[in-house]
Amino acid sequence: MLRERRSRIANREIRKEIKEVMAPEVVQQKSQSLKIIPLGGLEQIGMNITAYMYGDSIIVVDCGLAFPADEMLGIDLVIPDVTFLKNNIEKVKGFVITHGHEDHIGALPYILKDINVPVYSTKLTNGIIENKLKEHNMLKTTKRKVVKYGQSINLGCFRIEFIRINHSIADAAALAIFTPAGLVIQTGDFKVDYTPVFGNTIDLQRFAELGKKGVMALLCDSTNVERPGYTMSERTVGKTFDTIFADNLNSRIIVATFASNVDRVQQIINSAVKYHRKVVIEGRSMVNIVTTAKELGYITMPDNVLIDIENIKNYTDEQLVLITTGSQGESMAALSRMAASIHKKVTIKPGDTVIFSSNPIPGNEKQVSKVINELSMQGAKVIFQDVHVSGHACQEEIKLIYALTRPKYAVPVHGEYRHLIRHAQLAQEMGLPKEHIFLLSSGDVLSMSMDGAEVVDRVPAQGILVDGLGVGDVGNIVLRDRQHLSENGLIIVVLTLERYSNQLLAGPDIVSRGFVYVRESENLMDEAREVVCDALEKCLSRNSSDWGRIKNEIKDSLSDYLWKKMKRSPMILPIIMEV
Amino acid sequence: MLRERRSRIANREIRKEIKEVMAPEVVQQKSQSLKIIPLGGLEQIGMNITAYMYGDSIIVVDCGLAFPADEMLGIDLVIPDVTFLKNNIEKVKGFVITHGHEDHIGALPYILKDINVPVYSTKLTNGIIENKLKEHNMLKTTKRKVVKYGQSINLGCFRIEFIRINHSIADAAALAIFTPAGLVIQTGDFKVDYTPVFGNTIDLQRFAELGKKGVMALLCDSTNVERPGYTMSERTVGKTFDTIFADNLNSRIIVATFASNVDRVQQIINSAVKYHRKVVIEGRSMVNIVTTAKELGYITMPDNVLIDIENIKNYTDEQLVLITTGSQGESMAALSRMAASIHKKVTIKPGDTVIFSSNPIPGNEKQVSKVINELSMQGAKVIFQDVHVSGHACQEEIKLIYALTRPKYAVPVHGEYRHLIRHAQLAQEMGLPKEHIFLLSSGDVLSMSMDGAEVVDRVPAQGILVDGLGVGDVGNIVLRDRQHLSENGLIIVVLTLERYSNQLLAGPDIVSRGFVYVRESENLMDEAREVVCDALEKCLSRNSSDWGRIKNEIKDSLSDYLWKKMKRSPMILPIIMEV
Repeated sequence: MLRERRSRIANREIRKEIKEVMAPEVVQQKSQSLKIIPLGGLEQIGMNITAYMYGDSIIVVDCGLAFPADEMLGIDLVIPDVTFLKNNIEKVKGFVITHGHEDHIGALPYILKDINVPVYSTKLTNGIIENKLKEHNMLKTTKRKVVKYGQSINLGCFRIEFIRINHSIADAAALAIFTPAGLVIQTGDFKVDYTPVFGNTIDLQRFAELGKKGVMALLCDSTNVERPGYTMSERTVGKTFDTIFADNLNSRIIVATFASNVDRVQQIINSAVKYHRKVVIEGRSMVNIVTTAKELGYITMPDNVLIDIENIKNYTDEQLVLITTGSQGESMAALSRMAASIHKKVTIKPGDTVIFSSNPIPGNEKQVSKVINELSMQGAKVIFQDVHVSGHACQEEIKLIYALTRPKYAVPVHGEYRHLIRHAQLAQEMGLPKEHIFLLSSGDVLSMSMDGAEVVDRVPAQGILVDGLGVGDVGNIVLRDRQHLSENGLIIVVLTLERYSNQLLAGPDIVSRGFVYVRESENLMDEAREVVCDALEKCLSRNSSDWGRIKNEIKDSLSDYLWKKMKRSPMILPIIMEV
Repeated sequence: MLRERRSRIANREIRKEIKEVMAPEVVQQKSQSLKIIPLGGLEQIGMNITAYMYGDSIIVVDCGLAFPADEMLGIDLVIPDVTFLKNNIEKVKGFVITHGHEDHIGALPYILKDINVPVYSTKLTNGIIENKLKEHNMLKTTKRKVVKYGQSINLGCFRIEFIRINHSIADAAALAIFTPAGLVIQTGDFKVDYTPVFGNTIDLQRFAELGKKGVMALLCDSTNVERPGYTMSERTVGKTFDTIFADNLNSRIIVATFASNVDRVQQIINSAVKYHRKVVIEGRSMVNIVTTAKELGYITMPDNVLIDIENIKNYTDEQLVLITTGSQGESMAALSRMAASIHKKVTIKPGDTVIFSSNPIPGNEKQVSKVINELSMQGAKVIFQDVHVSGHACQEEIKLIYALTRPKYAVPVHGEYRHLIRHAQLAQEMGLPKEHIFLLSSGDVLSMSMDGAEVVDRVPAQGILVDGLGVGDVGNIVLRDRQHLSENGLIIVVLTLERYSNQLLAGPDIVSRGFVYVRESENLMDEAREVVCDALEKCLSRNSSDWGRIKNEIKDSLSDYLWKKMKRSPMILPIIMEV
């Protein structure tokens, strides 16, 4: 009863707040409901893009890409399917970006080609987006606007306020989305850091203030929801660097970390300055982001600290720190190339100290371990434990946001299903009724007003595979073929038949790839040819000139033979030519 | 000085001990040195097999297999190369097995075919080996002998004593290998468990006694050497089960764990009995090992606790516990099939409690997460944190073994290079000089006596790939082709030429697999055909009838075209037929 009353008051207050900024005709639509539509990200794939639609207005929060799953052989990356946005192109007012990580901005260059609307973000985020647009030659064709914390923008019938939060990249924001139906808060990726390296603590007061006024829905980060307690402050890593630098005064120090973690880079530089070392930045994305962050004032340092990699020969080992990409063991990143002795400028040598300031992202454990092994073999001392903190909120921080905002509905986002379901449980522990918590799949259309919420529709939202320059042209059949080829290899059977008479003019020739290497198995191939000849003869003697049937006969008999003989089933491709 | 003296005394004592059991002519060879030769296992691959050679005698400790690395596409498993043993077949006296895990026994059925010598192991280990031999129809042709803790066997000039240790499988042993050159202790995989579930604590007194007499070399487990402190007792997991069972009285409980962890299974059964539940064992390897362990007395339970999976319909959910394979997310294991709704007998339903009593082995994180997601989607409650302890010693336990045995030489084993190097550091902290610590690669021949030790030779020790029934016939070329095919797919160009005249009679036809699906890209294929025709014409007009050159020309021009057009490089296979 009390709960309901509070909720009604909250509704009133928030509608009042919205009235202040909305044109009258917009407010009259208030009987309509808000639609929240995740177009990616709520499945394992992990790209973040969420459309908000009310009446004739659509805004899109984030526009991330995903890295391919193991079974997506040969795929470079995955971008969201924005058919829904294309079909409603006249309604789309803009992209509103929470922060500059790939899973939140990476698909922009692809999507902006079809949906060329302005992009709104904070200063550093905008800088990183501009780098990306430059690479795609799209800087001139894309409108961008920099927004400050606390500032609001009006897009159609939406007002969006950027709220300060903490994360593993500077200038990350949560969004308060004021809609005629009610207020929605999307936290973006966040943590609570009371002692951040750059800027201030997350604006808990504003979350509280909005909570007091009434929050219809909270879309909150689920990444670390399985972890009890609090995430440590980024600043604790700085102390660890100081200790490591003090313990390794005589060795060259190489630190690998996420390029986008500007605060981490700042702390490495701080330790370098303290211990009188010069700093080299290495790896394309590291150079890009550090340059941008320095230009925009997010990284500061005394003059002459940064040196070019060409000049390292002018300094002794104990005068140097290299900050590099490759903390995830990515095979082409700078650190991996150093470890494999194929880096052009840096050779690992005994006495080097290499620090992984990162944890392996699930799935990368083996490749990280490979690089650690290689570095150890080169004689380097490798430090990889406890030189990292997460950028995502643990259970107590998530609870804090619920306690401050007291949303009517909860929509757990940013995690695999196991995380969303744990988040749902946490939301229930925080007092939300089960039926007010929505675990959405990509493409679900959640219709919401203060009077009720439900999933009412579904739009296309499969990930689109990017392979080379091809966007979306690699489908399931191609992937299935690649899987088959990768596990079992291939046998091609070619033969030439005479037109009409169906007489065998040439072949059958057998060519294999990824199957037993032919020179070593000539007997086998001879026998295989006999099997094919028998099958062919059988067909031709029956006067069967149906090529499909001949091909099937060849395929089946050869497949049987190989399975019986070797328990293997390569892909078999019969090709018939006609002369 | 004191150190040296102690060492000399130790040498005397150990030689005396050896004299007691050796024939006189053996002892006279004592000027010879012992050779220790790892034939696998000291590289990332991870299979364990070590040959010890002295004079005319060879014994082999363990005979494990490895699971394929990511880049070994389509490979089922990897077994050691035992060329060295084959070349010295008349010297090989037997296999001495430390415990029944796959990475220590899995290659036996393959290797015994060539090297048919007796296999020595403890009772449970022998039971598991017998299961394996039965599957390969080799039970009758293989001599086996069961050895008890504390018992010794004489093999050529070696005496081998089995010492009780603790591990994640019952009946695991360390080996004291008495040789004319000195005593070597190989710990096998071990931990120190003061409150084991089955049997007694590791025989620390015997380690101490041997240490007092003088240990020439210690080959010690490195798996957990990066972890400080102690590994928790297996018994702590039993308490966790009790708590979980008490918290979930009304749901069906499904526990996935390692089939070979007999003590873990025993503890699940104990909790089941306590909470009046029947137990179902599911998954082939789980059924095999539990049956063996029960027969041999390593698992005990009241009558009527175990029920057949066919009878679960006769019981309510709260009366049931299923113990199953699949804790590593292996796609064909029982739990994974339940999660994917393709298990024939068990369907996951809301209210089920599923426990992962395991940690993901590095590299398996993603597939485990996939199963957790699927189970969550079926409505199951999934518990996967803190229901497992390791079977391997952490730093303090490893130090304890060094303190008790005080070896002259240390040979860290069982780990990736990063672990071995950390172990070497630990050995130094325990007082061993750097030059007495040996990090061996597979195939290194370490020659050792009390007077000195060095790597003197190298024997073949590459892993041998097993694919279907084929052992060793898949080589690098085949794997490289599979890699190429898996990432980029394949384009086949076939054409028929007239003999002598080199006139084009049929084709060029283009067939693709794992590349863009043809029906969706007919334009592309038309253009590709033109490119091929141009290349062909160019060759033929030059009267070039060298097929190799024609094929190369086709390959190069098509490859150029596809890269320019799509930034893709499929494998291109030109095939020319002659009529």
